Amino acid sequence: MTDANATRRLANAIRALAMDAVEKANSGHPGMPMGMADVATVLFTKVLKYDASAPFWPDRDRFILSAGHGSMLLYALLHLTGSKEMTIDELKRFRQVGSRTPGHPERGHTESVETTTGPLGAGISNAVGLALAERILAAQYPTITDHRTFAICSDGDLMEGVSQEAIAIAGHYKLSRLVFLYDDNSISIDGDTSLSDSVDQIKRFEACGWNAVRIDGHDPEAIEAALKATENADKPTLIACKTVIGFGAPKKAGTEKAHGSPLGAEEIAGARKALGWDYPPFEIPEDVRSAWAEAGLRGRAARKEWESRFEAIEPAVRDDYERRLHGDLPADFAATMTAYRAKLYAAPKEVATRKAGEAALEVVSTALPELVSGSADLTPSNNTLTKNMTVIRPGAYGGTFMHWGIREHGMAGAINGLAIHGGLLPVGSTFLVFSDYCRPPLRLAALMGLRVVQVFTHDSIGVGEDGPTHQPVEHLASLRAIPNLNVFRPCDQIETAEAWELAVSSKTRPSVLALTRQNLPQLRLEETAENLSAKGAYELAAADGPAKVSLFATGSEVSLAIEAKAKLDAAGLPTRVVSAPCLDLFFDQPGSYRAEVIGTAPVKIAIEAAIRQGWDAIIGSDGGFVGMSSFGESGPYKEVYAKFGITVDGVTELATRLAASAA
Amino acid sequence: MTDANATRRLANAIRALAMDAVEKANSGHPGMPMGMADVATVLFTKVLKYDASAPFWPDRDRFILSAGHGSMLLYALLHLTGSKEMTIDELKRFRQVGSRTPGHPERGHTESVETTTGPLGAGISNAVGLALAERILAAQYPTITDHRTFAICSDGDLMEGVSQEAIAIAGHYKLSRLVFLYDDNSISIDGDTSLSDSVDQIKRFEACGWNAVRIDGHDPEAIEAALKATENADKPTLIACKTVIGFGAPKKAGTEKAHGSPLGAEEIAGARKALGWDYPPFEIPEDVRSAWAEAGLRGRAARKEWESRFEAIEPAVRDDYERRLHGDLPADFAATMTAYRAKLYAAPKEVATRKAGEAALEVVSTALPELVSGSADLTPSNNTLTKNMTVIRPGAYGGTFMHWGIREHGMAGAINGLAIHGGLLPVGSTFLVFSDYCRPPLRLAALMGLRVVQVFTHDSIGVGEDGPTHQPVEHLASLRAIPNLNVFRPCDQIETAEAWELAVSSKTRPSVLALTRQNLPQLRLEETAENLSAKGAYELAAADGPAKVSLFATGSEVSLAIEAKAKLDAAGLPTRVVSAPCLDLFFDQPGSYRAEVIGTAPVKIAIEAAIRQGWDAIIGSDGGFVGMSSFGESGPYKEVYAKFGITVDGVTELATRLAASAA
Repeated sequence: MTDANATRRLANAIRALAMDAVEKANSGHPGMPMGMADVATVLFTKVLKYDASAPFWPDRDRFILSAGHGSMLLYALLHLTGSKEMTIDELKRFRQVGSRTPGHPERGHTESVETTTGPLGAGISNAVGLALAERILAAQYPTITDHRTFAICSDGDLMEGVSQEAIAIAGHYKLSRLVFLYDDNSISIDGDTSLSDSVDQIKRFEACGWNAVRIDGHDPEAIEAALKATENADKPTLIACKTVIGFGAPKKAGTEKAHGSPLGAEEIAGARKALGWDYPPFEIPEDVRSAWAEAGLRGRAARKEWESRFEAIEPAVRDDYERRLHGDLPADFAATMTAYRAKLYAAPKEVATRKAGEAALEVVSTALPELVSGSADLTPSNNTLTKNMTVIRPGAYGGTFMHWGIREHGMAGAINGLAIHGGLLPVGSTFLVFSDYCRPPLRLAALMGLRVVQVFTHDSIGVGEDGPTHQPVEHLASLRAIPNLNVFRPCDQIETAEAWELAVSSKTRPSVLALTRQNLPQLRLEETAENLSAKGAYELAAADGPAKVSLFATGSEVSLAIEAKAKLDAAGLPTRVVSAPCLDLFFDQPGSYRAEVIGTAPVKIAIEAAIRQGWDAIIGSDGGFVGMSSFGESGPYKEVYAKFGITVDGVTELATRLAASAA
Repeated sequence: MTDANATRRLANAIRALAMDAVEKANSGHPGMPMGMADVATVLFTKVLKYDASAPFWPDRDRFILSAGHGSMLLYALLHLTGSKEMTIDELKRFRQVGSRTPGHPERGHTESVETTTGPLGAGISNAVGLALAERILAAQYPTITDHRTFAICSDGDLMEGVSQEAIAIAGHYKLSRLVFLYDDNSISIDGDTSLSDSVDQIKRFEACGWNAVRIDGHDPEAIEAALKATENADKPTLIACKTVIGFGAPKKAGTEKAHGSPLGAEEIAGARKALGWDYPPFEIPEDVRSAWAEAGLRGRAARKEWESRFEAIEPAVRDDYERRLHGDLPADFAATMTAYRAKLYAAPKEVATRKAGEAALEVVSTALPELVSGSADLTPSNNTLTKNMTVIRPGAYGGTFMHWGIREHGMAGAINGLAIHGGLLPVGSTFLVFSDYCRPPLRLAALMGLRVVQVFTHDSIGVGEDGPTHQPVEHLASLRAIPNLNVFRPCDQIETAEAWELAVSSKTRPSVLALTRQNLPQLRLEETAENLSAKGAYELAAADGPAKVSLFATGSEVSLAIEAKAKLDAAGLPTRVVSAPCLDLFFDQPGSYRAEVIGTAPVKIAIEAAIRQGWDAIIGSDGGFVGMSSFGESGPYKEVYAKFGITVDGVTELATRLAASAA
């Protein structure tokens, strides 16, 4: 058998498993695995540094299936190369509740799945982050970091806008150890891609600083040659692989009919014949099984060699590397943050929380060498480049701050990649209103349980003159709506320091820090050992006697609540104030704690310069609300607050009115 | 004075007004207007078909300031060309509450502002829609449609991912009457764009099917020549204008210091000297004023000529054109929809709401020739291409359906452009989970009050096997959070038809239709003349006697509520069911109606296969909720529903428990 024929036979095992699993599930996408089987086979049998027995080996090459709908390609590869978890039974349970083989690959759910993909563009932007992570870690740990990142992507990946952000970042930063294998099959769900697309991808990638070639994706020699040519590249590489979707299927190959549904018994029988694959469903002949098993061991020698290099490095460095890989914090980190808060208590000040955030970030990033900060071109506004950081530049990766350009979506996708890689703790930043641009990757960070931190400054109508296009109103609610995401909105420099501590300590949940543009007074003046923000909400100021009014507020509106309390107290309405820096954490608390914080005052009012949605859970549907119900307006911020009635008088008048009707 | 010098003098008027207004406001962006003043002056004085006295003349050329932070460029142009509303006093009130000169241009708020810009990438994607609208209308009204679209864009616009989607659409569809004037000043907020970018934009645009040239943006002759060269282009054109940000400012020009803050008195004095502009702030010398006033009249002859052509067309066609421009519906439209519902009542059926939506859309689009449908490459899944539609193709624009490609963000930006243009009613579609990709333009549609309709199918864990990446959980809440947006989630084919009627009737509010993948029984069986969805929620099934339990549900969960009611009734707990197809409309109703619908049953339970956020406003913080609190899971949809307890038994058990504790 020629080498090419042998490769084809291995690839046909993938094709058969994909057809069979989709058929059994009566749901799924056979076309892509069948089309890209040859490319994937060459990659896994000749190129990828991969050891199926050690899926988490840190210096493995990373393989990302950005075209996540072709999940059976990945599951078949894992099964054939000998992943313990990926048994033939799991393939038979494709797309069933509780299986290891969900419709789209899910990191954390299935071993050896590097990242969760499916939403198009996500995988390739993660891949850019993975390739960047390797360069950053290579600068920090040169003797033990030396791997590459390969991503299979589809027409859809390259049509999504985030692809442009991702490839522009990769090209600019010269991530030469990154390779995209583009499944250039000219078919999407609607039909031929010529229905909606005529982009010259080779030229486009070249314009963005990539090497780009087009090959026959069914020619094993061409695939291998193209992959080998990337080994010493000085730029990232696009290999556009011309393939036939559903390769082998007699009638559906090359059409959208092969994309997203089972082929059917007749077509599968025809494909088996065309491919010369005479085995029953889910059966792999011994020669094929053993050849694949061998491929699964290809990286073993490299891994053993890496392990001896790892053992050779200084124990303290090795321990810190392992600590970072596990996402643990240094043993003295909590003490560092307590000491920092003590310093803040000793010198109270009025400061914007974005500035307070900068100061806290300086402490945090000094303590955590794994922290990589960055901004989507709002560095001087987000205040996320602190004095101790140095800037990462193309070819010079020994820094801790990324200028991402005006690319919020690409940034968020890439920092997911930094987190996925291991060993790094990524921080992104932009304006809160532009969090909308990065919701898809933020959702995936929450779904995967990644420790990423997004600093979203300019967090309300307090933005002022820039007007409604730049004033978030619905964003706090819509971010709180995402499961497994903590949204912090601290009220002063103490809560800001607490939020930073909680965010970087959150191993399996991403965090958002919503910070103000405008100055806020320090409200936390009594030193506490406890991080009061940890429970999400707490009584900041008690009433003098049984409370008639409870005020609940976050961020910039807490000081307004405190001022209103003074007036209401004076007017004979004993008032307490609850600061709620993180509603997500508060709703996670036991019912008894929640009831205690919510309290029993007859009047409950929430104050937040944003929409009411979500607050009824605390104040009740009959509670009072001082906030927004429309978009904002351009003007000096105090005038904008006044225009929308978010003022001390607005609160006291509402409280007085509600107290009168409650009496 | 040479022609170039005369142009420079007119441009200096823009520069001076921009410097002065930003200085007076002590806030704003002087650098971009100063940099692009020469380009804008040539455009407005030599090329643009524009009549300042008739800002809404339908066949005017469209001018879009995608780099919306440079709003003073636009405001200065409007003032100088004689816009009645844009007085010098308004320029002096730049960025003040209540002025016509907000920080970023706002459509609807300021006459002659075609679209709201500021969030980068938005304007250029709108511009693609505007250019497409012109072609579609030219196919329908050839004698009265003949104009072009010009957009000024920035480095930031071209770094945002949506730019790739927009330019790929424009290139593919050969929108040759579209011109981007790229302010190629190599400066962004963080500093030189070389910090984060090295894309060859000329090559990139060429790869996407555009003509692309680079010129000196301060050379009036070069600007004019480049613009004239676009007149008979067969492709859209990028003119990259090399400019100096803050042109004229002695120290800050060419640096990020000129971008986003007042220049300061000293720098302004220096700029006045360098530019040879010896006039006090806000003063325009008579020669400049009269030259600009003349430019404001340039399009008048063309407009008059257009008006006579318009008068010449058939009165019925003319009336329909005007009706469409005003966003009115045909006089018989309501009757058409009532008749359609009667047909549905006559033949009840079990059908997925995406299929019911397709049937309703066929009726709606047959009645409304202005409707332009489309899908982001999910046409066979979204069911938005109905039998009566024909597909729009490059060079053949006489259709009513767009294949947008896998470009949700670009689609949503472009359909905003279709709506902004006038005369069209755009409909987009994708999966609900991917609404995240198009939040930024959806927010702008709401802010502008545009009549656009987004059909978001596959609206819950009912997606089934595709798993959590494709199962929306937080999206209903996060879309409801956007002010001035109606989110419909109909429960059967009747409510789906009602939702369609309401969506296309909504002149100043965009709509989302969240539709199921899976079949739903018909629940509305008694014919009503009234569109019951119009008030957002209504009692679908009354209790037999005083209700002990109220069940509130939307979409696919309403049938579940109805089934639970039967069981609870039988168990001695009289139960009523409220269907709530549009919570946004429900919250707009008078308190008395809301109270009546919410009712006084001791047990209130909301059922929605999504998160709870927002429902407490109806059921109270002590109400019961059957829905999601995490991401979903891959599997056959009924099993996924069962796994998360969203079942009839789940509802009846919770109701029984709550009734027992309430008793």
